[in-house]
This record gives sequence, structure tokens and C-alpha cells, in this order.
Amino acid sequence: MITLSLVGIGSGNPDHLTREAIRILESAEVILLPRKGAEKSDLADLRLMIAENILNGSPKIVEFDYPVRDANTPKYLDGVNTWHDALAAIWQKLISSHVSKEGSVALMVWGDPSLYDSTLRIADRLIARGMALNVNVVPGITSLQMLTAAHTIPLNTLGAPVLITTGRKLREDGWPEGVDTVAVMLDGECSFQHLDPSGVSIWWGAYVGMPQQVLIEGLLSEVGEDIVSTRAMARAESGWIMDIYVLRKSAN
Amino acid sequence: MITLSLVGIGSGNPDHLTREAIRILESAEVILLPRKGAEKSDLADLRLMIAENILNGSPKIVEFDYPVRDANTPKYLDGVNTWHDALAAIWQKLISSHVSKEGSVALMVWGDPSLYDSTLRIADRLIARGMALNVNVVPGITSLQMLTAAHTIPLNTLGAPVLITTGRKLREDGWPEGVDTVAVMLDGECSFQHLDPSGVSIWWGAYVGMPQQVLIEGLLSEVGEDIVSTRAMARAESGWIMDIYVLRKSAN
Repeated sequence: MITLSLVGIGSGNPDHLTREAIRILESAEVILLPRKGAEKSDLADLRLMIAENILNGSPKIVEFDYPVRDANTPKYLDGVNTWHDALAAIWQKLISSHVSKEGSVALMVWGDPSLYDSTLRIADRLIARGMALNVNVVPGITSLQMLTAAHTIPLNTLGAPVLITTGRKLREDGWPEGVDTVAVMLDGECSFQHLDPSGVSIWWGAYVGMPQQVLIEGLLSEVGEDIVSTRAMARAESGWIMDIYVLRKSAN
Repeated sequence: MITLSLVGIGSGNPDHLTREAIRILESAEVILLPRKGAEKSDLADLRLMIAENILNGSPKIVEFDYPVRDANTPKYLDGVNTWHDALAAIWQKLISSHVSKEGSVALMVWGDPSLYDSTLRIADRLIARGMALNVNVVPGITSLQMLTAAHTIPLNTLGAPVLITTGRKLREDGWPEGVDTVAVMLDGECSFQHLDPSGVSIWWGAYVGMPQQVLIEGLLSEVGEDIVSTRAMARAESGWIMDIYVLRKSAN
């Protein structure tokens, strides 16, 4: 059986790598590495830098191109599923031609493979296609952890729950029932603008963990517009942006 | 100003340490280390093992005893707050007597300092008491990430939210509104027993990331009792237990 390791590498800083992540990457027979182009290039650069400068020895790197996701598919989830199928076909071909029968192949995953990441779903597709795979997940620091660390705040208030959700859900459903703290990921459009800001604080960050990290915190009513304009400027300057935020309603 | 670093060390496996965690711990002038006794001793042992065997150089270790938490305080949160005050007084005394004026002191925190951890709240108390502190948070792998990695499952379903909550809240409020996935931490009493199990799957783990890790997964209606008895046996054998689980309602 081939072992496929999905290795969380953290959020843009090679110092986020765990001892386990380094060990698994160094001992892999092959590392599959998405080429830049389809992806934000700073991110692809960091993966390559890790492979070339951080790991001891020189694991065999096999680069591949991402399939293009069809943004015109009527239903969002249909588009994602078709894209996952296309990626699975690419992985299957590469693993079959580059990895030996009892060998090991690793992929570097942003953040942690458990949170808003597609690699576990793609691995499931390989197994469904009949590949004999042993899947191994190595956890990594998520951008959410990096955000709360950068702001030096706890994610939860004392003994209270936290909802992790997406920008899309926040826009569709408004403030979720029964929670005072909401962490928002995958938000391309500052969806907090759709909320009533009264009594809500926000801790926002872009490029968290990277040298160009930007942080803004405050009452949503006071800093919301500043975040929208800061985000637009940073995105125009870099050509890409990844941001994330925590919202908290005050107790009163 | 003194720098106080709260360093996430992961969930019981020294391989969870990040490069950043190792660097910060190695460069600290003093590491404050809770003595075993009040704490589960396997956990205190691991901290000491990291300090003595993993870190290069030999940072100065200052051990301290945990204050005893008064379980008889009528309100849960009052008891916790009093306990945090007592811990803050201990830290303040130790830092004042062992750390130089511009020096650095580090604490090793289970999991990540952002999630159901009290160290950030205690640091806030030191600042409120007038200490000039620069607080630095180093994220670590949480037991929740270790659980999903061990079960090779994503935490969220495609584009869907996740609620992280406590056993206490699950017992008090039942299945939370508007989410299909619930991660439960700090649960001393298998609170999933209070739920209607129909259509609910569970991924449970105890001592996740440690050599004695135990995992059970399946339909809650089929494996719930098995988890209760396995947990009781493991706890009797080890003298302590830490467990965590993810619940998911099927889409239909």
C-alpha cells in the first residue's frame, strides 16, 4: 500500500512547521507540489522554499498544475465537486507513475487538512477509484490560530462556544443563533458588512503569519469601513489577499 | 518590559512542537513549569521531558504548585475566576523574583493558548495588577486537530459551519441550532448521552496524540455505550483521562 500524507504546514511562516511535519516531508519518497499560476504565487513560492531550504535531504519534487475551477457552474457545490474530481484524476496519474508500490507521497497543505481544505476529500476519491491508499494526516497551525495569536486573544470566552463559519453563510444567515463568538473564513467580500454592528467587536487579519501581516481590531461600527478599504488596497498592491476574522458580541 | 510567551506545545506528543515553539522556549530566560500533583502527572512529565530532552541548551526551569480550585464555589464561573486570581498572584511573584527587567519568561500550554485555556486570562490579570508585560502567543496543535487527524476526517463538511462547545453546554442546551457538526471539549461525563442519537455519527478519542491513544467511531446509537464503558475503564487504569469528540448529523 502507498501512504499518502497530507501535511499541514501552517499559515505562511516556515516556523509553523511541526517536528512531525518536517519528519514526514523529509522521509517521503515524492512530494507533490502544485505549481504557481493557478494559485497565489507567494503561497506556491513558500511551499517550494520549504521543500528546497528547510527540509534536509532532497525529496523528489513532482510539480503539477491545478485544473481551472469553472466559476460558471450554476450551483457552487457542483462546481467544487467537479473540480475535486479533476484534481483526483491528476493525483492518481502522478502517484501511479512516480510512487513505488509500498512508497510514500506527501502534499503540503495550508493550515490544517481538517479545516476548509479539500485534500481529504480528494484522497477519498482516489480510494473510491480503487487505489489502495493509507491516508495519514499531519495537523498544522491554522490561520485562525495565527489570527488569535497575533491579536493575543482567546478564541472563546470563558466556557462558551465558538462557531467557525464562512463568509457565504454569514451573508445568507446573519448572526448565528446561540453563540457570542464567530470566526469567519473563506470570505471574499467582507461579509461582516451585512450584520448589525451594534455591540460587536472584530479582530481582523490579512496575510496572518506572513511578513506582510496586517491587523485591525475594534468595534465593528468604528473599524468596519477601515477594514474594507485596507483590504482593497492591500489586495491591489499584492495582487492577492487571504484574510480572516473573529467577531464577538459583548455580554451586555 | 518583560516578554511573557505562552507557547502551545500540542496534545501530548513532542513531535507536535513547531519550530517557533522550540525557538521561543530555547531562548527564554526562564520557563515556568507547573509541578505535578495537582495536574495529571503524565502531562506534567511530558512538559519536563520537553524542557530537559528536546530543547537545546538548558533554560532555567522554575517549578510551581497549582493552587487548588474550590469545587464548592456555588457558581462555576466564580470558582474559575477565583482560581485564575490565585494563579496570577503566583505568576507575578515568580516573574518578579526570577526574570530580569528586559528578560523573557515562557510557559508551555497544552494544545493552543486560544482554545479553552486560561493562560491569556491570567496574563491579563498580571497587566491589570500593573505589571509591564509584552504578551506573545505561539500557536500549537490542539487536541481537536489531533482527533480529526487520527480519524482522517475533515472537521467541516463542504462549506459548512462547525460549532466548538463544551460538555456542559451540550447537556444544558441540547443539539445547537443551525449546525450539523459539533466538536465537544471539556466533557467529563459523556454528555452525548443526553442527545437523541438518531442520524448522529461520532468520532471519539482519548489521550489523542499520546502513545495510549484510543479511538472509537460510528453511529452514536451503536457505539455510544461502548465509548462510555471504554472511557470508564481507561480512566480507572490510568488514573486520569482527557477525551474529545466530533458529532455530525447526516444530511438526510
